[in-house]
Amino acid sequence: DMDRLIVPSPLPATETMATTRVRPQVSIRGRSVGPIASSNAVGEEVPEFEPFMLLPRGPPPLTDYLDVWDVNMLKEPEEVNKQQHHTDRYANEGLIVRRGQEFQISITFNRPHDPSKDQFALEFVIGATPQYSKGTYIPVFPSEERNKLWGGRVLDTSDNVLTMGILPRADCIVGKYGMYVAVVTPYGIRRTKKDPSRELYILFNPWVKDDSVYLEDGAERTECVLNELGIIYHGAYDDVSERSWNYGQFEFGILDACLFIMDKGALPITNRGDPVKIARKASAMINSKDDEGVLVGNWSGDYMYGVAPTSWTGSVEILLSYANGGDPVCYAQCWVYAAVFNTFLRCLGIPARVVTNFFSAHDNDGNLKTDILLDENGKVDRSRTRDSIWNYHCWNECYMARLDLPEGFGGWQVVDATPQETSDGMYRCGPASVYAIKHGMVCYPFDAPFVFAEVNSDVVFYQRSRDGTLTPVKVNTSHVGRLVLTKAPGSNGRSDITSMYKFPEGSAEERTVLEKAEEYGVRRQDVTPPVADVALDIPSLEVKVGAGFDLALDFRNSSGQRRTVEAYTNGYVVYYTGVPSAEILFQSPTVTLDPRRKVIKVRPEDYMGKLVEQANLHFITTGKVKETGQIVTAMRVITLHKPRLLVQVAGTPRVSEEMLVTVQFTNDFKFSLENVHVRVEGPGVMSPHNKLYRLIAPGTTISWTESFIPRRQGPSKLMASLDCHALRQVTGEVDVHIEP
Amino acid sequence: DMDRLIVPSPLPATETMATTRVRPQVSIRGRSVGPIASSNAVGEEVPEFEPFMLLPRGPPPLTDYLDVWDVNMLKEPEEVNKQQHHTDRYANEGLIVRRGQEFQISITFNRPHDPSKDQFALEFVIGATPQYSKGTYIPVFPSEERNKLWGGRVLDTSDNVLTMGILPRADCIVGKYGMYVAVVTPYGIRRTKKDPSRELYILFNPWVKDDSVYLEDGAERTECVLNELGIIYHGAYDDVSERSWNYGQFEFGILDACLFIMDKGALPITNRGDPVKIARKASAMINSKDDEGVLVGNWSGDYMYGVAPTSWTGSVEILLSYANGGDPVCYAQCWVYAAVFNTFLRCLGIPARVVTNFFSAHDNDGNLKTDILLDENGKVDRSRTRDSIWNYHCWNECYMARLDLPEGFGGWQVVDATPQETSDGMYRCGPASVYAIKHGMVCYPFDAPFVFAEVNSDVVFYQRSRDGTLTPVKVNTSHVGRLVLTKAPGSNGRSDITSMYKFPEGSAEERTVLEKAEEYGVRRQDVTPPVADVALDIPSLEVKVGAGFDLALDFRNSSGQRRTVEAYTNGYVVYYTGVPSAEILFQSPTVTLDPRRKVIKVRPEDYMGKLVEQANLHFITTGKVKETGQIVTAMRVITLHKPRLLVQVAGTPRVSEEMLVTVQFTNDFKFSLENVHVRVEGPGVMSPHNKLYRLIAPGTTISWTESFIPRRQGPSKLMASLDCHALRQVTGEVDVHIEP
Repeated sequence: DMDRLIVPSPLPATETMATTRVRPQVSIRGRSVGPIASSNAVGEEVPEFEPFMLLPRGPPPLTDYLDVWDVNMLKEPEEVNKQQHHTDRYANEGLIVRRGQEFQISITFNRPHDPSKDQFALEFVIGATPQYSKGTYIPVFPSEERNKLWGGRVLDTSDNVLTMGILPRADCIVGKYGMYVAVVTPYGIRRTKKDPSRELYILFNPWVKDDSVYLEDGAERTECVLNELGIIYHGAYDDVSERSWNYGQFEFGILDACLFIMDKGALPITNRGDPVKIARKASAMINSKDDEGVLVGNWSGDYMYGVAPTSWTGSVEILLSYANGGDPVCYAQCWVYAAVFNTFLRCLGIPARVVTNFFSAHDNDGNLKTDILLDENGKVDRSRTRDSIWNYHCWNECYMARLDLPEGFGGWQVVDATPQETSDGMYRCGPASVYAIKHGMVCYPFDAPFVFAEVNSDVVFYQRSRDGTLTPVKVNTSHVGRLVLTKAPGSNGRSDITSMYKFPEGSAEERTVLEKAEEYGVRRQDVTPPVADVALDIPSLEVKVGAGFDLALDFRNSSGQRRTVEAYTNGYVVYYTGVPSAEILFQSPTVTLDPRRKVIKVRPEDYMGKLVEQANLHFITTGKVKETGQIVTAMRVITLHKPRLLVQVAGTPRVSEEMLVTVQFTNDFKFSLENVHVRVEGPGVMSPHNKLYRLIAPGTTISWTESFIPRRQGPSKLMASLDCHALRQVTGEVDVHIEP
Repeated sequence: DMDRLIVPSPLPATETMATTRVRPQVSIRGRSVGPIASSNAVGEEVPEFEPFMLLPRGPPPLTDYLDVWDVNMLKEPEEVNKQQHHTDRYANEGLIVRRGQEFQISITFNRPHDPSKDQFALEFVIGATPQYSKGTYIPVFPSEERNKLWGGRVLDTSDNVLTMGILPRADCIVGKYGMYVAVVTPYGIRRTKKDPSRELYILFNPWVKDDSVYLEDGAERTECVLNELGIIYHGAYDDVSERSWNYGQFEFGILDACLFIMDKGALPITNRGDPVKIARKASAMINSKDDEGVLVGNWSGDYMYGVAPTSWTGSVEILLSYANGGDPVCYAQCWVYAAVFNTFLRCLGIPARVVTNFFSAHDNDGNLKTDILLDENGKVDRSRTRDSIWNYHCWNECYMARLDLPEGFGGWQVVDATPQETSDGMYRCGPASVYAIKHGMVCYPFDAPFVFAEVNSDVVFYQRSRDGTLTPVKVNTSHVGRLVLTKAPGSNGRSDITSMYKFPEGSAEERTVLEKAEEYGVRRQDVTPPVADVALDIPSLEVKVGAGFDLALDFRNSSGQRRTVEAYTNGYVVYYTGVPSAEILFQSPTVTLDPRRKVIKVRPEDYMGKLVEQANLHFITTGKVKETGQIVTAMRVITLHKPRLLVQVAGTPRVSEEMLVTVQFTNDFKFSLENVHVRVEGPGVMSPHNKLYRLIAPGTTISWTESFIPRRQGPSKLMASLDCHALRQVTGEVDVHIEP
């Protein structure tokens, strides 16, 4: 009668969680038999002794029946369990194993165990009101034939010590379990006391075929589950910048923080074996909208009440501060959402990576159009152009089978925690099958049309005619979704995964896919613009912040006749969301072709002082060909390059030996920097530190030295960032290799 | 340059709406160019005069150019527009038309319009920051070839008066538009003043093929769009009870309340042409969870702080009280959610109906099992049986093409506003294609696996064996989803639509479908119970509340040998959710077969005083056959029949003539009723009234007379309800036919 031993306990915590926003408070009485367990924190109640029949008052009489003296979870990093389950790097006292793979527990009895007469079981329990039939109460017996849920067998017995092998199902619930040893006596069942040191975490297991997150490619698996060191790409597709990030999924407290996030989101315990449900819930919980989730978004440039998104160097600080009370952390922009989401997924054992999509269409609810309005002369009309294309957008891919979809849509799935205004009315997105997006099968959940639009939207140029209607005069089908990048497994190189999202530009497949997507309600603009014999291009440039540069307009006249273009060039300082902050330049040269090239000079004083965080300049040239009325357009984003921080380490790189790190920066600008925040941290070697400099005068150098004690051997990095209102996202790093 | 005339205006309302839950407040600056218009209430800003060039200060010089003297929206109920568009019954001053169908507007100029020189346009505008390319700013011209969005033509001109026909696109945005007449003069464009009397509502149009909510069947269309009188089924599948409901979608203020709900949910204006997006958003907004929606759920039996769910007789009171301030209304249970949702859908022109599923599996997140635990003797163990099957559950079906899915999944779609604990982690559900559910294609959005489980779950009886594991001993595959009913179109009869959800029990198709669904991750219990030669049935009964009755246990012994059954019969008072409130009976007869029948006497005193709202009794008999060990089970729900209210009318049933309604009730019980709420209302004839009786002593009769003045001709009903803690859901009604 072992499962009688679990006495259902009412669950005030969950109950209020489910009804917090409802006033007046409403009870679940009459609504359901028991609350639906949706917290891993609320512990199960287990009696120590469960009589078979009525007994005289007082404790049960002492007997010589089997008695449990000690239980050894074999949970040290160097012991068999954490070694075989790839969990030895977690800074966590408890046993951590992966499902679908056997682990071991040793039990010391008062005397050798006699299979012929001694009856006992290991009981694994998760959440309140555990039930055998829901997989939240699992008894495991030493004799194989009696195990109906998880495998169990005796691996070894030496006098009083018995070592058991336990094989959790490959689809079992992921989270923190309680463990008990229950022994049958004639009077009833005696059970070990509740003991936190005997709790264990069971995680997803990308190493075993039966787990729906199984990832065959070993290099990708190692990168996307075990690597704490990340590189996130930003800038422009033809001038890519890199940002290092400390995912820190193994750092102290992070695993518990991930469980806390699922509890805060009230994800039913019984759903926590399904990576699709977990990833979907997390995409809602990583942002604070709707549900008081982890990160508050802020793109305004004013970060007075929190940390500037550009200032973070890793996920650890963010997750720990959230787990400590559950108040949303300020502030995030897309790469911060993606990076913290990545930590969450890798920590639970779901293979995940951060990807960057250059020129990402946004808030477009599956409408494949971004509109730019031109006046009658072909000049951009900013006041009426309301759409923006993000210079880049970061989201996550996680790897899993999609048992909820037909064959073939498993593998990498897009999830995105950045709150979008229009994704299915909720601030969450995905998982959406990357394969489905590439093939236009946007009819499968979740939010595929939305992701499809982010990589496939057209840029449509409209001209306003005198009678008030708009006529599309040009469509740029290759601008959006120009390049999708992620860090290459096992190296610091880039891997271009654009082809996983799209067929080659102009290919037959590409057209088919767009038509297919339209069948599923993705709307597009069909435009047949007038034949064009004049082309315009603005070559890319690499420019240091503070430098002047020449912007070239390259016209190509394929008509063989004379062509005259009245061209308009606007320059703007833009946020990385493409939203203009200030106009810095306007010229309207009339160019008679050829000459082929017209050069426009941009001086530092044109843009310095107007820059916003990531210092992007956006130039757009449009014009009308006098002779033909053709509209020519070209756009160019220039990401100004920032100075770097100099990061150096001193001391012997050995575990538990003190070392020093020095961060240096020289202000080469003509203006002084105020309220400068400097941060430094390194996974496994140094927890996040930061320092504030009230003023860094022009020409002066600051140098900050901190000591740290490496916790773990192997390769790592120290990453530093410098951030102030006038100059954001200045970073630097140094590699270290820690010896045992 | 007509669309230049629309000056974008900042949108504080929307902005705060988008960030209310985020502390500290975050602006959208830098995030997007302009806020995404998601309110129909925030009006557009339009200048009266827009100069083509700089002018001397002061008003523009008077000229003899075309001038607008008057605009006639032809919006009276008896006029052409409301007649042809089936909108004449809305108690609303404004013009109400349906998309995809031409309507008319007459303009009186200062002189006859001369097409050769006079240039003008009608402009239709919805939401803030309207854009031509987003379909939120639509200029309509008198000359057909210049209309690129909506059709426009001159229907008639008689001297100064010009009547125009306007044809909105069949997929245009649904909601409230502003209308302006803009005339081109050499100096610039002159436009009519903003004038609320010229606003118009554009609704969905089930009468035209091009609209995605087109419904061919005329009888169903009339029923599901135009009928305000509803019948909602409850009780037990073999003893169905009826409840009349006043949907009141045409009552004063209801249409505006529906737009308010979409605004409160911040549904982007550009999404409001899509019935799928609107229905999905509404399924979240009709309940108060997550989003401060319309109705607060309460199943506890304690309704001190609001109106008991059983007390409502219609949707009008609820929607008006919500629209007046936006505070959630207390309280609702499933049929209230479904009824108010139905009003919302019909009011906007989306064909909709309320359906009742008898024996509905709940909160089961796509796991097709409901577990009942038996102890070793075959007796039900309530303390460990945590699942419940709702005696019935109400949801909505709405009719629409599913352009987001492959061919064939359009038609009726399930939407459900009753908050479920486990539906995709959000308190909303659907639209899910009924066709997809019948065929097990649960891979298509939205929430199909969840609805599939509600009608297809198995009831699994487990027996606990000595060693603590559970063995399934019986599976009842026909109990859940036993019957799905909705009101028959054009009559007060019932229409059994079970076959739209399921293939016949035991058919080959049924098995195929269940396998198909399992492919998409819907988990089931495969059980091969021991061969059974003893069957048990409890025949249904119709019982008046307060009466005693005989409960029969019919055993059938097909073995030809002697069989002895140790049977256990438990009786409970249960909520309609199947959750037990109190045990009222327990007997454990040992029956030797045959006799075939064993009778158990139930006396009034067994259950009276323990009843909860809907007075359901639940009997479950289980037992073990001595000779074979077979487990036999049977379940029976008995809904006690309530006394009726006597409702009578007096006076001449003519529009605008006063009449009287009398509601009578006699307390035949042996106990007195306290704090009794009586309600009465009738669509088009009487707004909701209610009266409180502090005490109705045993044997006494109350009689309440109110006067009312019918607003509208045609058939209607007066519906009354009586509700108090000891006796809920007593109703009565009378038909009236109002003459012109």
